[in-house]
Amino acid sequence: MKAEIIAVGTELLLGNTVNTNATFLAQRLQECGVESYRQVVVGDNITRIADAIKSALSNDIILICGGLGPTGDDVTRDAVALAAGKKLYEDQVCRQKVSDYINKAGTPLTENNFRQALLPEGAVVLHNENGSAESFYLDINNTRVYVLPGPPRELKPIFDKYIAPEISGESVLVKRQLRLFGIWESALETKIAHYTHDLANPSVGIYASHGGVMLQVTARAKTLNEAENMLVPVVDELCDILGDDVYGIDVDNIEHAVVNLLTKQGKKLAVAESCTGGLIAKRIVDRPGASAVFDCGVVSYSNDIKNKVLGVSKETLEKYGAVSSQTAAEMAQGILNLSGADIAVSVTGIAGPDGGTPEKPVGTVWYGIADKNGVKTFKNVVSRDGADRNYIREYSASYALNLVRKHLSCV
Amino acid sequence: MKAEIIAVGTELLLGNTVNTNATFLAQRLQECGVESYRQVVVGDNITRIADAIKSALSNDIILICGGLGPTGDDVTRDAVALAAGKKLYEDQVCRQKVSDYINKAGTPLTENNFRQALLPEGAVVLHNENGSAESFYLDINNTRVYVLPGPPRELKPIFDKYIAPEISGESVLVKRQLRLFGIWESALETKIAHYTHDLANPSVGIYASHGGVMLQVTARAKTLNEAENMLVPVVDELCDILGDDVYGIDVDNIEHAVVNLLTKQGKKLAVAESCTGGLIAKRIVDRPGASAVFDCGVVSYSNDIKNKVLGVSKETLEKYGAVSSQTAAEMAQGILNLSGADIAVSVTGIAGPDGGTPEKPVGTVWYGIADKNGVKTFKNVVSRDGADRNYIREYSASYALNLVRKHLSCV
Repeated sequence: MKAEIIAVGTELLLGNTVNTNATFLAQRLQECGVESYRQVVVGDNITRIADAIKSALSNDIILICGGLGPTGDDVTRDAVALAAGKKLYEDQVCRQKVSDYINKAGTPLTENNFRQALLPEGAVVLHNENGSAESFYLDINNTRVYVLPGPPRELKPIFDKYIAPEISGESVLVKRQLRLFGIWESALETKIAHYTHDLANPSVGIYASHGGVMLQVTARAKTLNEAENMLVPVVDELCDILGDDVYGIDVDNIEHAVVNLLTKQGKKLAVAESCTGGLIAKRIVDRPGASAVFDCGVVSYSNDIKNKVLGVSKETLEKYGAVSSQTAAEMAQGILNLSGADIAVSVTGIAGPDGGTPEKPVGTVWYGIADKNGVKTFKNVVSRDGADRNYIREYSASYALNLVRKHLSCV
Repeated sequence: MKAEIIAVGTELLLGNTVNTNATFLAQRLQECGVESYRQVVVGDNITRIADAIKSALSNDIILICGGLGPTGDDVTRDAVALAAGKKLYEDQVCRQKVSDYINKAGTPLTENNFRQALLPEGAVVLHNENGSAESFYLDINNTRVYVLPGPPRELKPIFDKYIAPEISGESVLVKRQLRLFGIWESALETKIAHYTHDLANPSVGIYASHGGVMLQVTARAKTLNEAENMLVPVVDELCDILGDDVYGIDVDNIEHAVVNLLTKQGKKLAVAESCTGGLIAKRIVDRPGASAVFDCGVVSYSNDIKNKVLGVSKETLEKYGAVSSQTAAEMAQGILNLSGADIAVSVTGIAGPDGGTPEKPVGTVWYGIADKNGVKTFKNVVSRDGADRNYIREYSASYALNLVRKHLSCV
């Protein structure tokens, strides 16, 4: 089965938006065992969209996304109708849905909203739970043309609910994702070259991910069981080779692994952040269920707050500076005392662009981990070429979360 | 002048890589005054690449990127030669360059490296300083076909050094971005339909952006001055119509506008966050220079921390609950007292998925703004269909930052 992806939107052609929908759909097509033949981006122009559809009709399926909004330049419906030689009609069920949706959202209902109730004759509606525009498909000759809304939070669930089950072949694809932190992609490739180069099914791919690396092991077989059995020995061998660098299997990121461990152990975490400025707290709270394991966070950017709120002594701040082992230790101890948490982590460093010195260059970060047994500190210097403020902060947050993960794993 | 971008790479079709090269090239084309007609992604296949080139020959220029590496599946050179009906030859200058580059990089020189010295007859070399593959262009009929390496750090300098000066027309493009919060895209379009529909130069486009909306006003003229003068009246009129919903012109997001205002007024901000869990602090600290205006943040997820650290009274928490006007007020007052800040904002709400009640459904959020004159509270219910935990948190953080922005604007 062959597919083509057509993304519609002048904002894509102008470079105002990155075409992440194409990436998502391409990944899903691969998982469904469907070959991606081509991707196209066209502007909000009826003729051009219709031309793109016509020149893709040698495929079994076409996935079109974008241009289903209520405004005058949203013309994907019109273009699909043109390419199919069908008329648009106002679907009464869709009209009711648009009206209900807009009313529920509490926003004013204007006449242009009802453009979203137009469908080409013969279209089959795929219900969109997250937006006012309904998705639909239409068969043109032997090609099934799926039409999806542009916002990713609307597009993704529709693909997974309606389209994936319909296009998945008779073979089953199963994958495991091993996530690693603290090892670089090139070093990892050298270590497991046999797996990435010589295996075909299961196959092993290496991807950069969140300042870490992700290893994807994929197996295809006739049954789920068979595919699972093919995966197990490869995943086990990789875990043996890579040891503690693997922070989780089939977790989204380090905070996911940390929240899982905290939940399992019934523990609460507190965080004292300087250079990461709330990022660690934010990443923990991103996880549903975080309230059961996240106790408290303090973002103490200034020395004054480090002293007043966290109890870091003025002597420590004067003698060793805010970016030091001593300050990191007192921050971690301070937030542990302040909160009722079982484990506390602190971060203090220089994210730049200013503030670096020869002794403490931009990228220097100190961490503290405290629990009832005491406090330990760690230092890391982010010195990677081109590491900017955001990279240093994201990496430092990951580093801190990985320290928490390692600490919890050893208990 | 019209252009098409062709990105080559099976990794793009599999969704393993996001097509950021297309976004970069599209932005640059717009800046050069060249119309983007279409973008295409094809796999590493000679015939398919050649077909893509042939079907793009109605453009004045084609930008091809990717597939210039040394391995057998890098076939872009072969495809360009095929589409042009030319032969490939080994260019001796390129051969020397490849050899010098590989030796300098200290990696082993293998015979396949010299595939990178092959060029279609008639090609003109564009020197690549950051990789072994030379870039080149070739004219096919009346279309100039530029061929660029895939790695962004190689592609970008080549475009800027050789291609941009060649394709930039005599006109200049100038744009202003008005950013809005608190008004929906469809309502906005109704309000300013005349501007989005009837104007061509300057033109006005509407884009969804960060839970808000962005209006882009673009003018093209022979000189910078002339283009600027065309923009001014349109921007002024839009600002008059939209009033306080516009939070900034040519700012990246609300936190950017807030940091600008704080810097200008020499004020410091403190933040007390419950459901947003550090996100407001994180977004403020994302801005370089935040340390001068950001004082302190407390993430008080539990009632205990709201009481212990922020001084919210136990009576308030028991009588009104954590999500209430009273708690929001005491949180804002508490963080203002604790810190040395001039203005404080608090957020307490129910981000879900659990925790909602009929009186306080998921999405209910209370905000407090405190300064030396006292404290005010605000309520908002995020009731948009499909608004999940992350949406509610991002939206609430934007809402809080917008309250700070409005408060600072009124002073």
